[in-house]
Amino acid sequence: MTLPSHGSNPHYLYEALEIEMPESVLDFSANINPLGPPLRIKEQWSGFFEGILQYPDPHAIELTKSIAKKEALPEQSVLMGNGGAEIIMLVANGLANQRVLIIQPAFAEYAEACLAAGCKVDFHQLDAPGWQLDLERLIPRLPEYDAIFLCTPNNPTGVSFKRDTVRELIIECQKANCLVVLDEAFYDFTEDAFSYASLINAFPHLLILRSMTKIFAIPGLRLGYLLASPDIIKRVRNYKPHWSVNHVALEVGKICLAEDAYMRKTRDYIVWQKQKLFRFYEEQGLDVSDSTVNFYLVKDESLSLFPFLLKKGIVPRHTYNFPGLDGRWLRFAVKSEHDNEALMEGVRQWRKQGSVL
Amino acid sequence: MTLPSHGSNPHYLYEALEIEMPESVLDFSANINPLGPPLRIKEQWSGFFEGILQYPDPHAIELTKSIAKKEALPEQSVLMGNGGAEIIMLVANGLANQRVLIIQPAFAEYAEACLAAGCKVDFHQLDAPGWQLDLERLIPRLPEYDAIFLCTPNNPTGVSFKRDTVRELIIECQKANCLVVLDEAFYDFTEDAFSYASLINAFPHLLILRSMTKIFAIPGLRLGYLLASPDIIKRVRNYKPHWSVNHVALEVGKICLAEDAYMRKTRDYIVWQKQKLFRFYEEQGLDVSDSTVNFYLVKDESLSLFPFLLKKGIVPRHTYNFPGLDGRWLRFAVKSEHDNEALMEGVRQWRKQGSVL
Repeated sequence: MTLPSHGSNPHYLYEALEIEMPESVLDFSANINPLGPPLRIKEQWSGFFEGILQYPDPHAIELTKSIAKKEALPEQSVLMGNGGAEIIMLVANGLANQRVLIIQPAFAEYAEACLAAGCKVDFHQLDAPGWQLDLERLIPRLPEYDAIFLCTPNNPTGVSFKRDTVRELIIECQKANCLVVLDEAFYDFTEDAFSYASLINAFPHLLILRSMTKIFAIPGLRLGYLLASPDIIKRVRNYKPHWSVNHVALEVGKICLAEDAYMRKTRDYIVWQKQKLFRFYEEQGLDVSDSTVNFYLVKDESLSLFPFLLKKGIVPRHTYNFPGLDGRWLRFAVKSEHDNEALMEGVRQWRKQGSVL
Repeated sequence: MTLPSHGSNPHYLYEALEIEMPESVLDFSANINPLGPPLRIKEQWSGFFEGILQYPDPHAIELTKSIAKKEALPEQSVLMGNGGAEIIMLVANGLANQRVLIIQPAFAEYAEACLAAGCKVDFHQLDAPGWQLDLERLIPRLPEYDAIFLCTPNNPTGVSFKRDTVRELIIECQKANCLVVLDEAFYDFTEDAFSYASLINAFPHLLILRSMTKIFAIPGLRLGYLLASPDIIKRVRNYKPHWSVNHVALEVGKICLAEDAYMRKTRDYIVWQKQKLFRFYEEQGLDVSDSTVNFYLVKDESLSLFPFLLKKGIVPRHTYNFPGLDGRWLRFAVKSEHDNEALMEGVRQWRKQGSVL
């Protein structure tokens, strides 16, 4: 049995497990903004048609400038990409055949991309249930590596690492001549949208990966970017196919960057729903991760909650391909109030029918 | 002065040449179907919105199956990509650090992608004005290389190589243990849409690159694919970012594959317009390439036609980055009757004002 290595597209999961897929499912496996895309995208959708007849701007100048301005970075420090996944692949190509350390648990794509690029990949495992950085073990390892990958806020745990600790790690990496690749795909779901991007001007060995598909609920369009020193951007750009960001994504991206009120509303909604969810899990005596974002882990030590929910048409994200989690935790997106209620009802039923904790 | 390395997005060309860009331009630098996209795409456009909320199918199963069926190849011989440009980059990654021979003149992207992947890149120059394959010079070189790139029908000349000669080359490459990468981005603009794809089952060292953005006039959406042996597809897939083909491209691609009448209409239109254009160039005493597709070269030995047309808002594709052409030929797309008339009028004026041939 080989389970899909990513969330979303749940029919692949049902097929792999040979469970019949109910006609309608609630997919908690993709961490997408539960409010859906900003309204202006739908309003302007018909206007995007004409642009498909032209090649998109290969340099994505308008979006690049807007993001540079927002981040107070030079334009040369921004590279737009075909989703965060392309950015990861480009960075991996830039690290071809080098030694890479991935701090785990983490998004599986870092290792896949680095291995495809011929890197020597090692892992540094953080311990459940806090999954905090342990610099005393980590720092001595740094001189052996050309780059480390750290996902913060972390996917799949949802944990944000202590800011002082991350800053200290960035400084130690500089001393060790080791690049730091920070994946901030979910930073804008946190309450204060804290980011390490302001450090890029001072730390030319720092790369920050960003995604626009999660916060703006546009995963079908693919849009992400890299923030880094102009030297790194220039190098990584060589690996990027021409016109890799499509016209619709470019247009939608421009709309999204002006959606400040929508982002505040999103964060408030996530906080509100998470309070309800976490109170429920506590009442049920279930362990959850200390999430700062729009998804979290729930412990499923007996491995029985996963198939129980799937049969009911509720799709968690399995963690079999996250070393250290090994399927014994399930990841859930924070979805709409209605969907979260349905999930809680499903968990309640599982507990009633005599689940073993 | 650095000219853009690709056609389309003409404002970059005007900027580089420091020529003021007229308010409206006719862009002959991008080789897009002059009929525009199939009508059904516009009709169904509003229905594509909902899908942007989901991750696209990372395996693009429906399109993959349809293309495999159409080409009478196994599904494992098809890999969908984010435009032909992504496919080129993936193939180059698969050839990382190997020795590659590019038959010139050719699309500049092969060399760029192979160099980025650390390949040793050499060129085999075909001679103007026929640009036909010269196997007696080419075959002895093959044992030195791991792969050759051949674009047929050729971009930028529009010439189709003799079929027997290409078949002989494929066989000689097999003997020399050298992969053959055939770029068929424009095969479906030729009168009989001839392709070498049927050879893939017999020749596991043959890779065929295809583009759907030119024939269906959807360059803004990005859609292309690779046809090759299942072994090669499996290897190349490792370099592909997850979900690289966006949802709108997948939906539009499914529509396009059923557009047989539109494709016949396109070919008839191209033949008709090219007859008129080529008769005109002959009357004017201008040399043109023996094009089988929707673009062609016109000789501009004095280098004066290029700026003359640009100032009038007619945008040719320069050939400064095609070794062997060196700007002394201009490439023009076959556009609508109206646009082609405007081009002929521009050329006529240039001849009248005393152009030096």
